[in-house]
Amino acid sequence: MHIAMTNDKIVPADSLDPVYFDRGTYFGDGVYEVLRSYDGRIFALGDHFARFTRSLQEIEITGIGVETVKNRVLEAFKEAKISNAKIYFHVTRGSGPRDHAADKGLTPNFFLTISQIHENLKPKKEGIKVSTHPDWRWKRCDIKSLNLLANVMARRDAAQKGCSEAILVDESGLITEGAASTFFAIIDKKLYSSPLSANILPSITRKYIAKAAQELGIEVVEQSITPDQAKSADELFIAATTADITPVVSFDGKDIYDGKPGETTLALARQFRAFI
Amino acid sequence: MHIAMTNDKIVPADSLDPVYFDRGTYFGDGVYEVLRSYDGRIFALGDHFARFTRSLQEIEITGIGVETVKNRVLEAFKEAKISNAKIYFHVTRGSGPRDHAADKGLTPNFFLTISQIHENLKPKKEGIKVSTHPDWRWKRCDIKSLNLLANVMARRDAAQKGCSEAILVDESGLITEGAASTFFAIIDKKLYSSPLSANILPSITRKYIAKAAQELGIEVVEQSITPDQAKSADELFIAATTADITPVVSFDGKDIYDGKPGETTLALARQFRAFI
Repeated sequence: MHIAMTNDKIVPADSLDPVYFDRGTYFGDGVYEVLRSYDGRIFALGDHFARFTRSLQEIEITGIGVETVKNRVLEAFKEAKISNAKIYFHVTRGSGPRDHAADKGLTPNFFLTISQIHENLKPKKEGIKVSTHPDWRWKRCDIKSLNLLANVMARRDAAQKGCSEAILVDESGLITEGAASTFFAIIDKKLYSSPLSANILPSITRKYIAKAAQELGIEVVEQSITPDQAKSADELFIAATTADITPVVSFDGKDIYDGKPGETTLALARQFRAFI
Repeated sequence: MHIAMTNDKIVPADSLDPVYFDRGTYFGDGVYEVLRSYDGRIFALGDHFARFTRSLQEIEITGIGVETVKNRVLEAFKEAKISNAKIYFHVTRGSGPRDHAADKGLTPNFFLTISQIHENLKPKKEGIKVSTHPDWRWKRCDIKSLNLLANVMARRDAAQKGCSEAILVDESGLITEGAASTFFAIIDKKLYSSPLSANILPSITRKYIAKAAQELGIEVVEQSITPDQAKSADELFIAATTADITPVVSFDGKDIYDGKPGETTLALARQFRAFI
Protein backbone atom coordinates (compact mmCIF):
# COMPACT_ATOMS: atom_id res chain seq x y z
CA MET A 1 0.00 0.00 0.00
CA HIS A 2 1.24 3.45 -0.92
CA ILE A 3 -0.59 6.20 0.86
CA ALA A 4 -0.60 9.96 0.68
CA MET A 5 -1.88 12.76 2.85
CA THR A 6 -2.96 16.18 1.68
CA ASN A 7 -3.34 18.53 4.61
CA ASP A 8 -5.38 16.45 7.11
CA LYS A 9 -6.74 13.84 4.69
CA ILE A 10 -5.19 10.40 4.24
CA VAL A 11 -5.87 8.97 0.78
CA PRO A 12 -4.58 6.20 -1.46
CA ALA A 13 -1.72 7.73 -3.48
CA ASP A 14 -3.17 6.59 -6.79
CA SER A 15 -6.46 8.42 -6.13
CA LEU A 16 -4.74 11.81 -6.38
CA ASP A 17 -4.40 14.11 -9.37
CA PRO A 18 -0.85 13.45 -10.74
CA VAL A 19 -0.09 17.16 -10.15
CA TYR A 20 0.50 16.19 -6.49
CA PHE A 21 3.51 14.17 -7.63
CA ASP A 22 4.81 16.87 -9.97
CA ARG A 23 8.59 17.13 -10.01
CA GLY A 24 7.97 20.87 -10.20
CA THR A 25 7.03 20.71 -6.53
CA TYR A 26 9.37 17.94 -5.40
CA PHE A 27 12.48 19.51 -6.93
CA GLY A 28 11.56 22.70 -8.80
CA ASP A 29 12.40 20.54 -11.81
CA GLY A 30 10.92 22.81 -14.46
CA VAL A 31 11.28 26.08 -16.32
CA TYR A 32 8.91 28.97 -16.88
CA GLU A 33 8.27 32.21 -18.72
CA VAL A 34 6.18 35.30 -18.06
CA LEU A 35 4.90 37.24 -21.07
CA ARG A 36 2.64 40.21 -21.33
CA SER A 37 0.41 41.70 -23.97
CA TYR A 38 -0.21 45.34 -24.71
CA ASP A 39 -3.55 46.10 -26.34
CA GLY A 40 -4.12 42.56 -27.51
CA ARG A 41 -0.61 41.87 -28.79
CA ILE A 42 1.93 39.68 -26.98
CA PHE A 43 5.24 41.52 -26.62
CA ALA A 44 8.50 39.86 -27.71
CA LEU A 45 6.93 36.42 -28.17
CA GLY A 46 9.89 35.18 -30.22
CA ASP A 47 12.43 36.32 -27.62
CA HIS A 48 10.54 34.61 -24.81
CA PHE A 49 10.28 31.35 -26.73
CA ALA A 50 13.95 31.44 -27.68
CA ARG A 51 14.84 31.77 -23.98
CA PHE A 52 12.31 29.12 -23.01
CA THR A 53 13.74 26.70 -25.59
CA ARG A 54 17.21 27.21 -24.14
CA SER A 55 15.95 26.71 -20.56
CA LEU A 56 14.30 23.41 -21.55
CA GLN A 57 17.48 22.26 -23.28
CA GLU A 58 19.76 23.20 -20.39
CA ILE A 59 17.87 21.03 -17.94
CA GLU A 60 17.22 18.38 -20.61
CA ILE A 61 13.45 18.28 -20.52
CA THR A 62 12.35 16.47 -23.65
CA GLY A 63 9.03 14.93 -24.58
CA ILE A 64 7.27 18.22 -25.24
CA GLY A 65 7.72 20.31 -28.36
CA VAL A 66 8.28 24.05 -28.10
CA GLU A 67 5.76 24.52 -30.92
CA THR A 68 3.15 22.63 -28.89
CA VAL A 69 3.80 24.95 -25.96
CA LYS A 70 3.63 28.04 -28.16
CA ASN A 71 0.35 26.90 -29.71
CA ARG A 72 -1.14 26.33 -26.27
CA VAL A 73 -0.06 29.79 -25.12
CA LEU A 74 -1.57 31.41 -28.23
CA GLU A 75 -4.76 29.38 -27.94
CA ALA A 76 -5.20 30.30 -24.27
CA PHE A 77 -4.42 33.97 -24.97
CA LYS A 78 -7.06 34.04 -27.71
CA GLU A 79 -9.59 32.34 -25.45
CA ALA A 80 -8.85 34.68 -22.51
CA LYS A 81 -9.83 37.84 -24.43
CA ILE A 82 -7.70 40.04 -22.15
CA SER A 83 -5.92 42.80 -24.02
CA ASN A 84 -3.43 43.72 -21.29
CA ALA A 85 -2.62 40.27 -20.04
CA LYS A 86 0.03 38.67 -17.90
CA ILE A 87 0.75 35.19 -19.23
CA TYR A 88 2.60 32.78 -16.96
CA PHE A 89 3.46 29.24 -17.95
CA HIS A 90 5.77 26.49 -16.83
CA VAL A 91 6.80 23.07 -18.04
CA THR A 92 8.05 20.50 -15.55
CA ARG A 93 9.76 17.18 -16.21
CA GLY A 94 6.53 15.43 -15.25
CA SER A 95 4.85 13.59 -12.42
CA GLY A 96 6.27 10.43 -10.93
CA PRO A 97 7.81 8.80 -7.88
CA ARG A 98 10.23 11.12 -6.10
CA ASP A 99 13.56 10.11 -7.63
CA HIS A 100 16.22 12.74 -8.34
CA ALA A 101 17.52 11.22 -11.56
CA ALA A 102 13.99 10.72 -12.97
CA ASP A 103 12.50 8.10 -15.17
CA LYS A 104 13.13 8.53 -18.84
CA GLY A 105 9.50 7.83 -19.65
CA LEU A 106 7.98 10.86 -17.90
CA THR A 107 5.56 13.13 -19.74
CA PRO A 108 6.24 16.82 -19.04
CA ASN A 109 3.47 18.83 -17.38
CA PHE A 110 2.38 22.16 -18.83
CA PHE A 111 0.58 24.76 -16.73
CA LEU A 112 -0.49 28.29 -17.64
CA THR A 113 -2.41 31.17 -16.15
CA ILE A 114 -3.58 34.36 -17.82
CA SER A 115 -4.74 37.32 -15.81
CA GLN A 116 -5.43 40.98 -16.40
CA ILE A 117 -2.63 43.46 -15.70
CA HIS A 118 -3.86 46.41 -13.70
CA GLU A 119 -1.21 49.01 -14.42
CA ASN A 120 -0.12 50.65 -11.23
CA LEU A 121 1.00 54.09 -12.30
CA LYS A 122 2.09 55.33 -8.89
CA PRO A 123 5.45 53.45 -8.74
CA LYS A 124 6.20 54.54 -12.29
CA LYS A 125 5.49 58.20 -11.55
CA GLU A 126 6.93 58.40 -8.06
CA GLY A 127 9.53 55.65 -8.15
CA ILE A 128 10.09 52.86 -5.65
CA LYS A 129 12.39 52.06 -2.76
CA VAL A 130 14.74 49.07 -2.94
CA SER A 131 16.98 47.33 -0.43
CA THR A 132 19.90 44.96 -0.87
CA HIS A 133 20.08 41.28 0.04
CA PRO A 134 22.86 38.70 -0.41
CA ASP A 135 22.47 36.82 -3.68
CA TRP A 136 21.77 33.32 -2.37
CA ARG A 137 20.59 31.93 -5.70
CA TRP A 138 22.09 28.91 -7.41
CA LYS A 139 24.88 29.08 -9.96
CA ARG A 140 22.73 28.67 -13.07
CA CYS A 141 20.53 31.76 -12.93
CA ASP A 142 20.81 31.91 -16.72
CA ILE A 143 18.18 29.13 -16.65
CA LYS A 144 14.68 30.45 -15.87
CA SER A 145 13.84 27.65 -13.46
CA LEU A 146 11.29 27.09 -10.70
CA ASN A 147 14.04 27.22 -8.04
CA LEU A 148 13.17 30.66 -6.73
CA LEU A 149 13.26 30.41 -2.95
CA ALA A 150 16.30 32.72 -2.73
CA ASN A 151 14.35 35.30 -4.72
CA VAL A 152 11.32 34.86 -2.46
CA MET A 153 13.42 35.28 0.69
CA ALA A 154 15.09 38.41 -0.68
CA ARG A 155 11.77 39.94 -1.75
CA ARG A 156 10.20 39.17 1.63
CA ASP A 157 13.16 40.83 3.35
CA ALA A 158 12.66 43.90 1.16
CA ALA A 159 8.94 43.99 1.96
CA GLN A 160 9.74 43.93 5.68
CA LYS A 161 11.92 47.00 5.10
CA GLY A 162 9.11 48.78 3.27
CA CYS A 163 10.78 48.25 -0.10
CA SER A 164 9.27 46.98 -3.35
CA GLU A 165 12.26 45.07 -4.67
CA ALA A 166 15.41 43.39 -3.37
CA ILE A 167 18.66 44.07 -5.21
CA LEU A 168 20.93 41.04 -5.00
CA VAL A 169 24.59 41.42 -4.12
CA ASP A 170 27.04 38.59 -4.80
CA GLU A 171 29.93 37.42 -2.62
CA SER A 172 32.36 39.75 -4.35
CA GLY A 173 30.19 42.73 -3.39
CA LEU A 174 28.75 43.37 -6.85
CA ILE A 175 25.10 43.78 -7.76
CA THR A 176 23.82 40.96 -9.98
CA GLU A 177 20.14 41.83 -10.50
CA GLY A 178 16.83 42.30 -8.69
CA ALA A 179 14.93 39.41 -7.12
CA ALA A 180 12.41 39.62 -9.97
CA SER A 181 13.81 42.37 -12.18
CA THR A 182 16.91 43.65 -13.92
CA PHE A 183 18.74 46.51 -12.26
CA PHE A 184 20.10 49.57 -14.09
CA ALA A 185 22.02 52.67 -13.12
CA ILE A 186 22.65 55.92 -14.93
CA ILE A 187 26.10 57.27 -14.06
CA ASP A 188 27.58 60.21 -15.98
CA LYS A 189 24.89 59.81 -18.65
CA LYS A 190 25.85 56.18 -19.28
CA LEU A 191 23.56 53.18 -18.73
CA TYR A 192 25.07 50.46 -16.51
CA SER A 193 23.83 46.90 -16.23
CA SER A 194 25.53 43.65 -15.24
CA PRO A 195 27.08 41.62 -18.07
CA LEU A 196 25.30 38.36 -18.87
CA SER A 197 26.77 35.30 -17.16
CA ALA A 198 25.67 32.07 -15.49
CA ASN A 199 24.60 34.26 -12.54
CA ILE A 200 22.24 36.46 -14.52
CA LEU A 201 18.94 35.79 -16.24
CA PRO A 202 19.14 37.03 -19.83
CA SER A 203 16.36 39.59 -19.46
CA ILE A 204 14.32 40.31 -22.55
CA THR A 205 13.26 43.73 -21.28
CA ARG A 206 16.97 44.49 -20.85
CA LYS A 207 17.54 43.81 -24.53
CA TYR A 208 14.84 46.31 -25.51
CA ILE A 209 16.11 48.87 -23.01
CA ALA A 210 19.56 48.62 -24.57
CA LYS A 211 17.89 49.23 -27.92
CA ALA A 212 16.02 52.24 -26.50
CA ALA A 213 19.29 53.60 -25.09
CA GLN A 214 20.97 53.22 -28.45
CA GLU A 215 18.18 55.18 -30.14
CA LEU A 216 18.52 57.93 -27.56
CA GLY A 217 22.30 58.04 -27.99
CA ILE A 218 22.98 56.75 -24.47
CA GLU A 219 26.08 54.62 -24.11
CA VAL A 220 25.47 51.17 -22.59
CA VAL A 221 28.14 49.83 -20.23
CA GLU A 222 27.94 46.14 -19.36
CA GLN A 223 29.59 46.33 -15.97
CA SER A 224 28.43 45.35 -12.50
CA ILE A 225 28.41 48.05 -9.85
CA THR A 226 28.54 47.99 -6.05
CA PRO A 227 25.81 49.14 -3.66
CA ASP A 228 27.96 52.21 -2.89
CA GLN A 229 28.15 53.10 -6.56
CA ALA A 230 24.39 52.59 -6.81
CA LYS A 231 23.75 54.96 -3.89
CA SER A 232 25.73 57.71 -5.56
CA ALA A 233 24.37 57.07 -9.08
CA ASP A 234 22.54 59.85 -10.91
CA GLU A 235 19.54 57.61 -11.54
CA LEU A 236 18.47 54.03 -10.87
CA PHE A 237 15.68 51.90 -12.25
CA ILE A 238 14.52 48.31 -12.51
CA ALA A 239 12.87 46.55 -15.41
CA ALA A 240 10.67 43.49 -15.73
CA THR A 241 8.34 42.06 -18.34
CA THR A 242 5.11 42.87 -16.54
CA ALA A 243 6.07 46.38 -15.45
CA ASP A 244 8.73 47.45 -17.98
CA ILE A 245 10.67 50.40 -16.46
CA THR A 246 10.15 51.50 -12.86
CA PRO A 247 12.32 54.30 -11.41
CA VAL A 248 14.16 53.63 -8.14
CA VAL A 249 14.31 56.68 -5.87
CA SER A 250 15.72 55.13 -2.69
CA PHE A 251 18.45 52.51 -2.28
CA ASP A 252 19.06 50.99 1.15
CA GLY A 253 17.42 54.03 2.72
CA LYS A 254 19.41 56.61 0.76
CA ASP A 255 17.67 58.96 -1.67
CA ILE A 256 18.99 58.71 -5.20
CA TYR A 257 19.99 62.20 -6.36
CA ASP A 258 16.94 64.35 -5.45
CA GLY A 259 14.75 61.36 -4.59
CA LYS A 260 12.69 61.74 -7.75
CA PRO A 261 12.57 59.62 -10.93
CA GLY A 262 15.40 60.67 -13.24
CA GLU A 263 15.05 62.34 -16.64
CA THR A 264 17.02 59.69 -18.52
CA THR A 265 14.96 56.91 -16.91
CA LEU A 266 11.74 58.58 -18.02
CA ALA A 267 13.11 59.12 -21.51
CA LEU A 268 14.06 55.43 -21.73
CA ALA A 269 10.58 54.44 -20.52
CA ARG A 270 8.98 56.58 -23.24
CA GLN A 271 11.29 55.15 -25.89
CA PHE A 272 10.62 51.60 -24.66
CA ARG A 273 6.90 52.17 -25.02
CA ALA A 274 7.49 52.97 -28.68
CA PHE A 275 8.45 49.33 -29.28
CA ILE A 276 5.21 47.87 -28.07
CA MET B 1 -11.69 36.56 -16.41
CA HIS B 2 -8.71 34.63 -15.10
CA ILE B 3 -8.03 31.46 -17.00
CA ALA B 4 -5.68 28.54 -16.57
CA MET B 5 -4.51 25.71 -18.77
CA THR B 6 -3.33 22.31 -17.58
CA ASN B 7 -1.64 20.44 -20.40
CA ASP B 8 -4.07 20.90 -23.32
CA LYS B 9 -7.17 21.89 -21.35
CA ILE B 10 -8.27 25.50 -20.84
CA VAL B 11 -10.26 25.96 -17.63
CA PRO B 12 -11.44 28.78 -15.37
CA ALA B 13 -8.64 29.27 -12.83
CA ASP B 14 -11.03 29.04 -9.87
CA SER B 15 -12.22 25.58 -10.96
CA LEU B 16 -8.81 24.05 -10.22
CA ASP B 17 -7.58 22.32 -7.07
CA PRO B 18 -5.56 24.99 -5.17
CA VAL B 19 -2.53 22.66 -5.42
CA TYR B 20 -2.09 23.99 -8.96
CA PHE B 21 -1.30 27.39 -7.46
CA ASP B 22 1.01 26.00 -4.79
CA ARG B 23 4.02 28.20 -4.09
CA GLY B 24 5.89 24.91 -3.78
CA THR B 25 5.69 24.67 -7.56
CA TYR B 26 5.90 28.36 -8.45
CA PHE B 27 8.98 29.03 -6.32
CA GLY B 28 9.98 25.88 -4.45
CA ASP B 29 8.74 27.88 -1.48
CA GLY B 30 8.62 25.04 1.01
CA VAL B 31 10.66 22.64 3.11
CA TYR B 32 10.62 18.87 3.43
CA GLU B 33 11.88 15.86 5.34
CA VAL B 34 12.38 12.21 4.54
CA LEU B 35 12.16 9.70 7.40
CA ARG B 36 12.28 5.99 7.45
CA SER B 37 11.12 3.26 9.75
CA TYR B 38 12.83 0.01 10.61
CA ASP B 39 10.53 -2.82 11.68
CA GLY B 40 7.66 -0.51 12.53
CA ARG B 41 9.65 2.18 14.35
CA ILE B 42 10.47 5.58 12.86
CA PHE B 43 14.19 6.29 13.17
CA ALA B 44 15.42 9.58 14.69
CA LEU B 45 11.97 11.21 14.68
CA GLY B 46 13.08 13.92 17.10
CA ASP B 47 16.14 14.82 15.03
CA HIS B 48 14.10 15.09 11.86
CA PHE B 49 11.51 17.32 13.51
CA ALA B 50 14.18 19.52 15.05
CA ARG B 51 15.68 20.05 11.59
CA PHE B 52 12.24 20.55 10.05
CA THR B 53 11.36 23.17 12.68
CA ARG B 54 14.54 25.07 11.86
CA SER B 55 13.87 24.86 8.10
CA LEU B 56 10.37 26.30 8.60
CA GLN B 57 11.75 29.09 10.75
CA GLU B 58 14.55 30.00 8.37
CA ILE B 59 12.15 30.62 5.49
CA GLU B 60 9.53 32.06 7.86
CA ILE B 61 6.63 29.77 7.14
CA THR B 62 4.13 30.28 9.92
CA GLY B 63 0.50 29.30 10.19
CA ILE B 64 1.16 25.60 10.74
CA GLY B 65 2.30 24.09 14.01
CA VAL B 66 5.14 21.59 14.08
CA GLU B 67 3.06 19.47 16.47
CA THR B 68 0.25 19.37 13.91
CA VAL B 69 2.69 18.18 11.27
CA LYS B 70 4.16 15.57 13.60
CA ASN B 71 0.71 14.27 14.51
CA ARG B 72 -0.21 13.97 10.85
CA VAL B 73 2.99 12.06 10.10
CA LEU B 74 2.37 9.67 12.99
CA GLU B 75 -1.28 9.22 12.06
CA ALA B 76 -0.41 8.44 8.43
CA PHE B 77 2.39 6.07 9.48
CA LYS B 78 0.00 4.19 11.74
CA GLU B 79 -2.62 4.02 8.99
CA ALA B 80 -0.10 2.85 6.36
CA LYS B 81 0.87 -0.30 8.26
CA ILE B 82 4.26 -0.50 6.52
CA SER B 83 7.05 -1.63 8.81
CA ASN B 84 9.97 -0.58 6.60
CA ALA B 85 8.59 2.66 5.31
CA LYS B 86 9.92 5.71 3.55
CA ILE B 87 8.03 8.76 4.76
CA TYR B 88 8.27 11.92 2.68
CA PHE B 89 6.51 15.14 3.61
CA HIS B 90 6.68 18.79 2.72
CA VAL B 91 5.08 22.00 3.86
CA THR B 92 4.83 24.92 1.47
CA ARG B 93 3.89 28.53 2.22
CA GLY B 94 0.50 27.87 0.61
CA SER B 95 -1.47 28.40 -2.57
CA GLY B 96 -2.15 31.82 -4.00
CA PRO B 97 -1.51 34.23 -6.83
CA ARG B 98 2.10 34.08 -8.04
CA ASP B 99 3.69 36.89 -6.04
CA HIS B 100 7.25 36.53 -4.73
CA ALA B 101 6.72 38.34 -1.44
CA ALA B 102 3.51 36.40 -0.66
CA ASP B 103 0.35 37.30 1.08
CA LYS B 104 0.49 37.18 4.83
CA GLY B 105 -2.84 35.33 4.96
CA LEU B 106 -1.75 32.16 3.19
CA THR B 107 -2.43 28.77 4.73
CA PRO B 108 0.53 26.40 4.39
CA ASN B 109 0.01 23.19 2.41
CA PHE B 110 1.05 19.85 3.86
CA PHE B 111 1.70 16.83 1.65
CA LEU B 112 2.99 13.39 2.57
CA THR B 113 3.62 10.03 0.97
CA ILE B 114 4.48 6.74 2.60
CA SER B 115 5.82 3.84 0.61
CA GLN B 116 7.54 0.55 1.28
CA ILE B 117 11.34 0.46 1.23
CA HIS B 118 12.62 -2.48 -0.77
CA GLU B 119 16.15 -2.84 0.54
CA ASN B 120 18.55 -3.24 -2.33
CA LEU B 121 21.42 -5.25 -0.86
CA LYS B 122 23.59 -5.29 -3.98
CA PRO B 123 24.95 -1.72 -3.67
CA LYS B 124 25.63 -2.28 0.04
CA LYS B 125 27.53 -5.48 -0.60
CA GLU B 126 29.35 -4.52 -3.77
CA GLY B 127 29.54 -0.76 -3.42
CA ILE B 128 28.59 1.91 -5.95
CA LYS B 129 30.30 4.18 -8.47
CA VAL B 130 30.14 7.95 -8.08
CA SER B 131 31.15 10.86 -10.27
CA THR B 132 31.77 14.53 -9.50
CA HIS B 133 29.71 17.52 -10.59
CA PRO B 134 30.09 21.24 -9.84
CA ASP B 135 28.05 22.24 -6.81
CA TRP B 136 25.51 24.58 -8.42
CA ARG B 137 23.19 24.69 -5.41
CA TRP B 138 22.11 27.87 -3.67
CA LYS B 139 23.89 29.35 -0.69
CA ARG B 140 21.49 28.11 1.98
CA CYS B 141 21.81 24.35 1.67
CA ASP B 142 21.48 24.19 5.45
CA ILE B 143 17.74 24.65 4.78
CA LYS B 144 16.09 21.46 3.50
CA SER B 145 14.07 23.23 0.81
CA LEU B 146 12.26 22.21 -2.36
CA ASN B 147 14.87 24.01 -4.50
CA LEU B 148 16.62 20.89 -5.74
CA LEU B 149 17.16 21.37 -9.45
CA ALA B 150 20.95 21.54 -9.03
CA ASN B 151 20.79 18.18 -7.23
CA VAL B 152 18.61 16.73 -9.99
CA MET B 153 20.99 17.93 -12.72
CA ALA B 154 24.00 16.51 -10.90
CA ARG B 155 22.29 13.16 -10.31
CA ARG B 156 21.20 12.96 -13.95
CA ASP B 157 24.77 13.67 -15.04
CA ALA B 158 25.98 10.85 -12.77
CA ALA B 159 23.37 8.46 -14.19
CA GLN B 160 24.55 9.24 -17.71
CA LYS B 161 28.05 8.24 -16.58
CA GLY B 162 26.76 4.96 -15.15
CA CYS B 163 27.12 6.23 -11.58
CA SER B 164 24.63 6.04 -8.71
CA GLU B 165 25.45 9.34 -7.03
CA ALA B 166 26.96 12.72 -7.88
CA ILE B 167 29.53 14.15 -5.49
CA LEU B 168 29.36 17.93 -5.50
CA VAL B 169 32.50 20.03 -5.73
CA ASP B 170 32.44 23.72 -4.84
CA GLU B 171 34.24 26.60 -6.56
CA SER B 172 37.25 26.24 -4.30
CA GLY B 173 37.68 22.63 -5.43
CA LEU B 174 36.43 21.00 -2.23
CA ILE B 175 33.77 18.32 -1.92
CA THR B 176 30.64 19.53 -0.12
CA GLU B 177 28.34 16.49 -0.16
CA GLY B 178 26.44 14.14 -2.47
CA ALA B 179 23.43 15.25 -4.53
CA ALA B 180 21.19 13.32 -2.12
CA SER B 181 23.62 11.95 0.45
CA THR B 182 26.48 12.83 2.76
CA PHE B 183 29.96 11.89 1.61
CA PHE B 184 32.61 10.29 3.82
CA ALA B 185 36.21 9.19 3.39
CA ILE B 186 38.44 6.98 5.48
CA ILE B 187 42.04 8.17 5.29
CA ASP B 188 44.70 6.73 7.59
CA LYS B 189 41.99 5.17 9.76
CA LYS B 190 40.29 8.56 10.31
CA LEU B 191 36.73 9.42 9.20
CA TYR B 192 36.53 12.62 7.11
CA SER B 193 33.37 14.59 6.41
CA SER B 194 32.76 18.23 5.52
CA PRO B 195 32.16 20.60 8.43
CA LEU B 196 28.61 21.93 8.73
CA SER B 197 28.06 25.33 7.10
CA ALA B 198 25.47 27.21 5.07
CA ASN B 199 26.54 25.02 2.12
CA ILE B 200 25.83 21.72 3.81
CA LEU B 201 22.64 20.04 4.91
CA PRO B 202 22.96 18.98 8.54
CA SER B 203 22.55 15.28 7.88
CA ILE B 204 20.96 13.24 10.63
CA THR B 205 22.54 10.00 9.41
CA ARG B 206 25.91 11.80 9.64
CA LYS B 207 25.27 12.47 13.32
CA TYR B 208 24.66 8.77 13.99
CA ILE B 209 27.66 7.74 11.90
CA ALA B 210 29.85 10.03 14.00
CA LYS B 211 28.42 8.30 17.06
CA ALA B 212 29.15 4.89 15.53
CA ALA B 213 32.71 6.00 14.76
CA GLN B 214 33.17 7.15 18.33
CA GLU B 215 32.04 3.78 19.65
CA LEU B 216 34.48 2.03 17.32
CA GLY B 217 37.31 4.33 18.39
CA ILE B 218 37.60 5.97 14.97
CA GLU B 219 38.66 9.60 15.00
CA VAL B 220 36.26 11.94 13.20
CA VAL B 221 37.81 14.82 11.24
CA GLU B 222 35.46 17.59 10.12
CA GLN B 223 37.39 18.70 7.09
CA SER B 224 36.49 18.94 3.41
CA ILE B 225 38.63 17.01 0.97
CA THR B 226 39.32 17.37 -2.75
CA PRO B 227 38.42 14.88 -5.50
CA ASP B 228 42.10 13.94 -5.71
CA GLN B 229 42.20 13.16 -2.01
CA ALA B 230 39.01 11.14 -2.43
CA LYS B 231 40.52 9.09 -5.25
CA SER B 232 43.48 8.11 -3.11
CA ALA B 233 41.46 7.54 0.08
CA ASP B 234 41.54 4.12 1.73
CA GLU B 235 37.74 3.90 1.72
CA LEU B 236 34.77 6.00 0.67
CA PHE B 237 31.07 5.79 1.43
CA ILE B 238 27.88 7.80 1.27
CA ALA B 239 25.03 7.93 3.74
CA ALA B 240 21.37 8.87 3.48
CA THR B 241 18.27 8.35 5.57
CA THR B 242 16.65 5.78 3.32
CA ALA B 243 19.80 3.73 2.62
CA ASP B 244 22.04 4.46 5.63
CA ILE B 245 25.63 3.52 4.63
CA THR B 246 26.55 2.55 1.06
CA PRO B 247 30.22 1.87 0.18
CA VAL B 248 31.73 3.76 -2.77
CA VAL B 249 34.16 1.65 -4.80
CA SER B 250 34.77 3.91 -7.78
CA PHE B 251 35.23 7.70 -7.89
CA ASP B 252 35.30 9.46 -11.26
CA GLY B 253 36.28 6.17 -12.88
CA LYS B 254 39.08 5.34 -10.46
CA ASP B 255 38.86 2.27 -8.23
CA ILE B 256 39.10 3.09 -4.55
CA TYR B 257 41.88 0.95 -3.02
CA ASP B 258 41.11 -2.57 -4.29
CA GLY B 259 37.69 -1.64 -5.71
CA LYS B 260 35.85 -3.40 -2.91
CA PRO B 261 33.87 -2.05 0.08
CA GLY B 262 36.27 -1.19 2.89
CA GLU B 263 36.50 -2.90 6.27
CA THR B 264 35.99 0.27 8.29
CA THR B 265 32.94 1.20 6.19
CA LEU B 266 31.39 -2.20 6.84
CA ALA B 267 32.19 -1.96 10.54
CA LEU B 268 30.51 1.47 10.70
CA ALA B 269 27.47 0.09 8.86
CA ARG B 270 27.17 -2.74 11.38
CA GLN B 271 27.55 -0.31 14.28
CA PHE B 272 25.00 2.06 12.75
CA ARG B 273 22.49 -0.78 12.52
CA ALA B 274 22.84 -1.24 16.26
CA PHE B 275 21.13 2.14 16.80
CA ILE B 276 17.96 1.24 14.96
